[in-house]
Amino acid sequence: MSFQFHLTKTDKEVGARLGKIITAHGEFETPAFIPVGSQAAIKSMTSDDLMEIEVEIISNNSYHLYLRPGHRTIEQLGGLHRFMNWNRPILTDSGGYQLFSLGQLREISVDGVIFQSHIDGSRHFISPEMAIEIQRSLGADIIMSLDECIPYPVSHEYALRSTSLTTEWARRCNETLRGNGQALFGIVQGGMFEDLREKSAKELREIGFDGYAIGGLSVGESREVMYRIVSHTVPHLPREKPRYLMGVGKPEDIINAVMRGIDLFDCVIPTRNARNGMLFTSFGKLVIKNACHATDERPIEEGCGCYTCRHYSRAYLRHMYMAREILALRLNTIHNLYYYIHLIKGLRKAIRRDRLQDFCKEWKKKREERDEL
Amino acid sequence: MSFQFHLTKTDKEVGARLGKIITAHGEFETPAFIPVGSQAAIKSMTSDDLMEIEVEIISNNSYHLYLRPGHRTIEQLGGLHRFMNWNRPILTDSGGYQLFSLGQLREISVDGVIFQSHIDGSRHFISPEMAIEIQRSLGADIIMSLDECIPYPVSHEYALRSTSLTTEWARRCNETLRGNGQALFGIVQGGMFEDLREKSAKELREIGFDGYAIGGLSVGESREVMYRIVSHTVPHLPREKPRYLMGVGKPEDIINAVMRGIDLFDCVIPTRNARNGMLFTSFGKLVIKNACHATDERPIEEGCGCYTCRHYSRAYLRHMYMAREILALRLNTIHNLYYYIHLIKGLRKAIRRDRLQDFCKEWKKKREERDEL
Repeated sequence: MSFQFHLTKTDKEVGARLGKIITAHGEFETPAFIPVGSQAAIKSMTSDDLMEIEVEIISNNSYHLYLRPGHRTIEQLGGLHRFMNWNRPILTDSGGYQLFSLGQLREISVDGVIFQSHIDGSRHFISPEMAIEIQRSLGADIIMSLDECIPYPVSHEYALRSTSLTTEWARRCNETLRGNGQALFGIVQGGMFEDLREKSAKELREIGFDGYAIGGLSVGESREVMYRIVSHTVPHLPREKPRYLMGVGKPEDIINAVMRGIDLFDCVIPTRNARNGMLFTSFGKLVIKNACHATDERPIEEGCGCYTCRHYSRAYLRHMYMAREILALRLNTIHNLYYYIHLIKGLRKAIRRDRLQDFCKEWKKKREERDEL
Repeated sequence: MSFQFHLTKTDKEVGARLGKIITAHGEFETPAFIPVGSQAAIKSMTSDDLMEIEVEIISNNSYHLYLRPGHRTIEQLGGLHRFMNWNRPILTDSGGYQLFSLGQLREISVDGVIFQSHIDGSRHFISPEMAIEIQRSLGADIIMSLDECIPYPVSHEYALRSTSLTTEWARRCNETLRGNGQALFGIVQGGMFEDLREKSAKELREIGFDGYAIGGLSVGESREVMYRIVSHTVPHLPREKPRYLMGVGKPEDIINAVMRGIDLFDCVIPTRNARNGMLFTSFGKLVIKNACHATDERPIEEGCGCYTCRHYSRAYLRHMYMAREILALRLNTIHNLYYYIHLIKGLRKAIRRDRLQDFCKEWKKKREERDEL
């Protein structure tokens, strides 16, 4: 089954959309949230844990997997799905973001990027063609073109040059042979400049991709700037293709971006925050280490259907966290991922029933009832 | 239901026994292996994970739980079973071993022990009476008397004095009110001296306990010395009560001790080794970080029924370990605990069918077939 996107509904009042993505490893509705499993695992989770939470698609990271265990090793072992025992859709990032954030960058040219591994300092070169080759070996259902992730803030001049490079790389990625049924998404860059975002989107459209990502956001700019750029970019993306806001974000960011017509999100926030003891609830965040939870028999959130809330009290979770027990990481991750998946399902339902604005109002209202925590 | 032990069979050729322990939280057969959950969790495992492996009883540690989160907190939260969501039997250690290994010991007298917390250096006093009071609050099904864990090696004179102190403490533990249905086990000490082990066993029998533990072994002595002490001590313990060899051990130690009439074991080896990437198989140990596993699609052990072996390859487990993924700790723990539980079930079956010696021969033979790894 080759990749398909069906737009099933667009909200009458705002730009929010309902859709369906079909891949060789199953289908899922959009908007969708993609938990991040950089090194071929959502930290602390087995596939069964993820399926219980009804995770529908996960992401993996080419940069990490290229360095360790090596994309050829994973290919030899039958590809990522088999390697990590995950038979549902997978998206791999090209590693653009990690090249610029983790790798020690040595040289960037139109050819590609020379960088040093963050693991052992070894020297590597990745070109747009290689980024696709790596992702072909990994065998994900959705793969990403190589982009330069523009630092923030930068001059218009730098951003223009970088955006042109990203377009050139995107063109070469698109011309490189990819695996059977693999969808390739282009990544819109352009920094915080509307004209460059527009230029990037248009150039990518001309090349033609299976989906369009907005990259280079959530890099330190204010929330207002981020929403401004999303609002400005979306109208320049084709209606009939999925739109993916990379690396975003907090629950409120996801809601706001869904309102603006975004279909896909990935973010480390639910999983990373879980490991730091920061838990999401309808009433806002709960910091599990706080002393007030020491003898609290309630679950993280009353009525939450996750495994953690069905079996463990705040008191136990606080003890696990304070005692630095590994189980804390896992139980917290289960809850936070459940919260995100549940939120996105709520958004879908609200769009379907033409009550998205009410949903958002109710969501915000609950947040203000902090006493319930 | 108050505590009961039924001896159902004694092997005709060796001292091995088959029995059943009944507690308020269910029953289980002996010989049994007790995974260690010091801080109210078997590291990385939920209750469901443990139940899938068919773990029947777990241990918790009074020393750790007294310091954090505090036994009163756990009591207030309905006791350990409820706190940690484990409805099967629990054994708590009195903390004797940890007082002498973890706490900074300040003073030991007939009254009890003054020590400093390993967490924050705070000063504490624990008496035999308090050890029982703490364990009453925690609410385990089997609790242990307070003992002095004799260092190794020591003089006969030191060991004699210490063993007498342990007897005196055991007497006071027995005289202290414990919870409804809680079984109290005495701990035989005496170092590596046969006469003192005999003296200790006799004195404890005179006091009368629900079960008898052999403590102070696996503290640095050779395997031969350990077996010698076990062989010498067992005949001095009552036939009709369970015998518990504390802190033991490796699979071969468990087999050898079962042959000598031991019914219960607890040890951190399966869980701790798992976290260090050392996995148990019928063919001996497998070190998952070894490069030979990098592209090995086989499970840790062909035919193993554990979740890890049913879903993940050695190649994936090696990658998880090398990438320091939390999931490595959990998948390895599942396998090693399954191995131990499976071993103990194999021993039960062999005793039941009068083929224990054959079982042991076959077990050793497989170990010698290292090529199968």
